[in-house]
Amino acid sequence: MKKTMQEAFQDFYPDDTSYCYGCGRLNKDGLHIQSRWDGEESVCVFTPRPYHIALPGYVYGGLLASLIDCHGTGTAAAASYRAERREMDSDPPLRFVTASLKVDYLKPTPLGIPLSVRGKVKEIKGRKVVVEITVGAEDQICVRGEVVAVRIPGQ
Amino acid sequence: MKKTMQEAFQDFYPDDTSYCYGCGRLNKDGLHIQSRWDGEESVCVFTPRPYHIALPGYVYGGLLASLIDCHGTGTAAAASYRAERREMDSDPPLRFVTASLKVDYLKPTPLGIPLSVRGKVKEIKGRKVVVEITVGAEDQICVRGEVVAVRIPGQ
Repeated sequence: MKKTMQEAFQDFYPDDTSYCYGCGRLNKDGLHIQSRWDGEESVCVFTPRPYHIALPGYVYGGLLASLIDCHGTGTAAAASYRAERREMDSDPPLRFVTASLKVDYLKPTPLGIPLSVRGKVKEIKGRKVVVEITVGAEDQICVRGEVVAVRIPGQ
Repeated sequence: MKKTMQEAFQDFYPDDTSYCYGCGRLNKDGLHIQSRWDGEESVCVFTPRPYHIALPGYVYGGLLASLIDCHGTGTAAAASYRAERREMDSDPPLRFVTASLKVDYLKPTPLGIPLSVRGKVKEIKGRKVVVEITVGAEDQICVRGEVVAVRIPGQ
């Protein structure tokens, strides 16, 4: 069945690169982070689990870094297909890994509600894509991040 | 019972700040990251679980960021006690949160073996501590990170 753009970016990853703990659909113990386009930005909505605690009532920073990481590489892949004017189910597949990650924790992120992770492509240059990301809870931006993603060698 | 320096930094955290998913001893679903001094450096040995996959055979970047995060705040606390020439079981307790995190993934980190996370204090200035961190697998440094940790307000 042909996939549609309603599906998540991660639904298009080849099976052998779909075991990521953060976003792999084939990792049964994983977080199953999913990212989609919302106009020119990408968005991922994720509700941390009750045990994803930093201090009681707030979300663990390592989980927030994980959301930024996987949403960043997913956005990098999706943006690269767009730049090549290709559908995400066309060959060759594009899959990115993280070269570097920056996270600024602006304020504590409340636990127990859905978080909105939004990505914006800052730069596409050869095999490298830079994505700026925010994590919001209700109307507040709690975290800002930046991912430098690079296309997996051999693709 | 008086705690000794063989115990982990995180064993000295007050109960109400010991629910962190990364390093809280009271979070039964958490990772239980533990950090100790090794001379002037701090060290944490952690074996990722089999499902902490990035690409098959390699460790998930969000987990590596989590190790850097918790080892960084733990090292910041321990270094601050040292700077005040206090034992870690003395009052008032010192507990840090992460203000910002940088991670450079230098090479893929192999999954299935213990990782050595090492911290070095770069700066202590008022309530802020900057910790430089490496993650090594066998003899290879796979990841470099930096944590800016700040003392929890009110302490």
